[in-house]
Amino acid sequence: MSNSNKTEKVLDILRKEFKDKVRIDIIERVLYERDATTIEIETKLPKAVIFPTTKEEVKRIVEILYNEDIPMIPRGSGSGLTGGAVPIRGDEVVISLEKMNKFSIDLENATVIAEAGAITYEIQKEVEKYGLFYPPDPSSYKFSSIGGNIAENAGGPRCVKYGTTREYILGLEGVIKYGKTFKFGARVIKDVAGYDFTRFLIGSEGTLGIITSAILRLIPLPKERRVLLAFFERLEDIGKAVVKIFTNRIFPSALEFMDYVCIQSVNRYKNLSLPEDVAGMLLIELDGNPQAVLEDMREVENLLRTMGVKVEIAHTKEEEEKLWSARRALGPAISKLGTGKVNEDIVVPRSALPEYIPAVRKLAEKYNLKCAIFGHIGDGNLHVNFLFDKEKKEDIKNVNLAVEELFKLTIDFGGSITGEHGVGITKKPFLKLQLGEIGIELIKGVKQLFDPKNLFNPGKIVDV
Amino acid sequence: MSNSNKTEKVLDILRKEFKDKVRIDIIERVLYERDATTIEIETKLPKAVIFPTTKEEVKRIVEILYNEDIPMIPRGSGSGLTGGAVPIRGDEVVISLEKMNKFSIDLENATVIAEAGAITYEIQKEVEKYGLFYPPDPSSYKFSSIGGNIAENAGGPRCVKYGTTREYILGLEGVIKYGKTFKFGARVIKDVAGYDFTRFLIGSEGTLGIITSAILRLIPLPKERRVLLAFFERLEDIGKAVVKIFTNRIFPSALEFMDYVCIQSVNRYKNLSLPEDVAGMLLIELDGNPQAVLEDMREVENLLRTMGVKVEIAHTKEEEEKLWSARRALGPAISKLGTGKVNEDIVVPRSALPEYIPAVRKLAEKYNLKCAIFGHIGDGNLHVNFLFDKEKKEDIKNVNLAVEELFKLTIDFGGSITGEHGVGITKKPFLKLQLGEIGIELIKGVKQLFDPKNLFNPGKIVDV
Repeated sequence: MSNSNKTEKVLDILRKEFKDKVRIDIIERVLYERDATTIEIETKLPKAVIFPTTKEEVKRIVEILYNEDIPMIPRGSGSGLTGGAVPIRGDEVVISLEKMNKFSIDLENATVIAEAGAITYEIQKEVEKYGLFYPPDPSSYKFSSIGGNIAENAGGPRCVKYGTTREYILGLEGVIKYGKTFKFGARVIKDVAGYDFTRFLIGSEGTLGIITSAILRLIPLPKERRVLLAFFERLEDIGKAVVKIFTNRIFPSALEFMDYVCIQSVNRYKNLSLPEDVAGMLLIELDGNPQAVLEDMREVENLLRTMGVKVEIAHTKEEEEKLWSARRALGPAISKLGTGKVNEDIVVPRSALPEYIPAVRKLAEKYNLKCAIFGHIGDGNLHVNFLFDKEKKEDIKNVNLAVEELFKLTIDFGGSITGEHGVGITKKPFLKLQLGEIGIELIKGVKQLFDPKNLFNPGKIVDV
Repeated sequence: MSNSNKTEKVLDILRKEFKDKVRIDIIERVLYERDATTIEIETKLPKAVIFPTTKEEVKRIVEILYNEDIPMIPRGSGSGLTGGAVPIRGDEVVISLEKMNKFSIDLENATVIAEAGAITYEIQKEVEKYGLFYPPDPSSYKFSSIGGNIAENAGGPRCVKYGTTREYILGLEGVIKYGKTFKFGARVIKDVAGYDFTRFLIGSEGTLGIITSAILRLIPLPKERRVLLAFFERLEDIGKAVVKIFTNRIFPSALEFMDYVCIQSVNRYKNLSLPEDVAGMLLIELDGNPQAVLEDMREVENLLRTMGVKVEIAHTKEEEEKLWSARRALGPAISKLGTGKVNEDIVVPRSALPEYIPAVRKLAEKYNLKCAIFGHIGDGNLHVNFLFDKEKKEDIKNVNLAVEELFKLTIDFGGSITGEHGVGITKKPFLKLQLGEIGIELIKGVKQLFDPKNLFNPGKIVDV
């Protein structure tokens, strides 16, 4: 029997069992061919899209597909940026977790049990009603799912203080090879019984199995948040300012950087009048007890002013909203600089930034691309944006070459090719540069252990 | 050639190359036969103890031993409590990392690069001079090493707010099979390139390879710390109090519990007069901005008093020290209750405590043992201590039976058999109870991948 015929047969079996939870119509398949990746990638239509509603259904579906050698792609909200949730062979079945979106709050243990498809923002809104806090805030948090956030170890601006998704996952349930189920972790912060598979699955991009639910850790919601903007004439002063803030024992909840290109773009886009004749801007957020936030804010202001740095403080909630809105408008604002945009999420040690940023600009110049850089400076995570004309073949060729050089440059600076977007397919060719032979060997070994037939999200992270 | 002769031959080669860094004298071997485990375990003398001073030396030593099939036991300060660093076969070579104890502070990136043998406390003291903070505080922190803390994912009282060792390790270097070296992570908070081997090695108890150095993450040192004691008449009020504190948006830096047996012991041992006619006591520590700490402390006091809970506050540094000293004196104070003591570090969800603690007491009664319970209630981590007469064979038999039942009970309550001590050899028989077939299968698979000859710390965590 040809592979294609075999797939049809298996899909028939699934449709008998799961009725209209299995979709093979062209509209549905087209809708699930893409995610939010902006770089040029080659995708293929999936054979079907399945929408399980319970973990038992996921188990049964994986059991059938795994035994019949049919590759599957677990998918949350499809907001990923590296092609992690897209079919690339044409024989895959997409398993969408979006109908599994229930969650329940366990106040006594300050935890949430969430199905993989639960929307991060829905959980955040709900727990905040009780004065509790789930910190991870990737920019997609309003529509991305917990399962997707876990698969990518999603970050966001608050990571400098609160850490990434990984720091808030206490346990996982899911399905691996042949439909075997696993359950790691518990509703407790400490657990060192055996190897840490809970954290290992975080960031594994759906290549090891399918996560069906997670135990999330909640912390008390800070009572107050305040924002100030600092404008730097010299890039090297930014790192110095962060050292001063830290060593003065103040812990900001966000340290967001924008270069002058970003400031110009956002001024035009939002009709703002932020100073443009600077090397860069830092949005500094403090949170906690209201008195403490006020006091610390004054201290940060003083520290910065003694360095000769210009400071703008939000005195009202409206002013604060205006400052954050400048940060949030960055994506669309920068997009105006070209018809095409590639947003890379590299990471370099903070100390390297004064050398790294000019090197990236030089690289953009070499390939005749516009370049806008912003990012989460507290953790060294920079979003390097190359803007180009997507109708021009030359530009597309150049941007691909520039991205390749960017990754090499990043590794030379002791950094990482991805801070929060994951490897997916777009960064796969560069992973070995960073992890070396042994890293790739170990990845392939673990993949083989969890998924000996290479059926979970095949072709992502590494080729096996 | 017999195995023993072969080992002698390989040791000769090593002694030629490494001179007196290789010790085969009986005194050294006896000194390195044990760790700090209190439960009865069967150990054997190691064949030799080697003290490398550089990572290149570790690489070379592993290369030689691995190729010649000689098992090795990586060892930090030997303060482990589950037999993780002891030889149990008699053919092992101990590789002590204690001479590799250098570390350097990188202020710009708020990180430390530390060799595996660096003492946690030495690092903490040094970074505090700059207003920075390395939070993990296992009770052995004054003498335990970073490498050992990493191998066990060590915890401590502050984990409720700051997390465990895992949350402060950004990267690892070390040596695996055949002397191959690895380097994972970087001096950045975010890094999602490939599977997360950095965190996977944390808590792997030296069974996958030898960690030679780590990149530690530092955060700003809180400006102030304050302590209060709360005395509860009913166990169930403790969990309720924690819920009230959290949902009132206050985040304690420690929530330490002692039962009435502990209070009595500590009163006698330190000549204190803490109230004894209670179900338990909670030591609550708050940290941060001084104003905020004062204000939050008042709020916690009010919350507790409205619940009818008796509160004692430290108004001076001396009073605070006295309250913490009661907590710190617990180990020796409880030891007075018997000539033998077994201290288990189980974890159960906080909500289960009102049922779990009486069940543990009933268990102790059944086996005619004294029982004292204290722990880190914020993360559900309880230290259950069974006291007995170590000269009585009957008592030793009973305590082993009690521990076995304790683990089963803990798993029934949805908990974990170890929160911070690890599995080692003492908890190995119980791991499958918690992780199931699939958990053990995956552990064995990963062990096979990193260490196909089973030469790194063989017989720990699982038998392969």
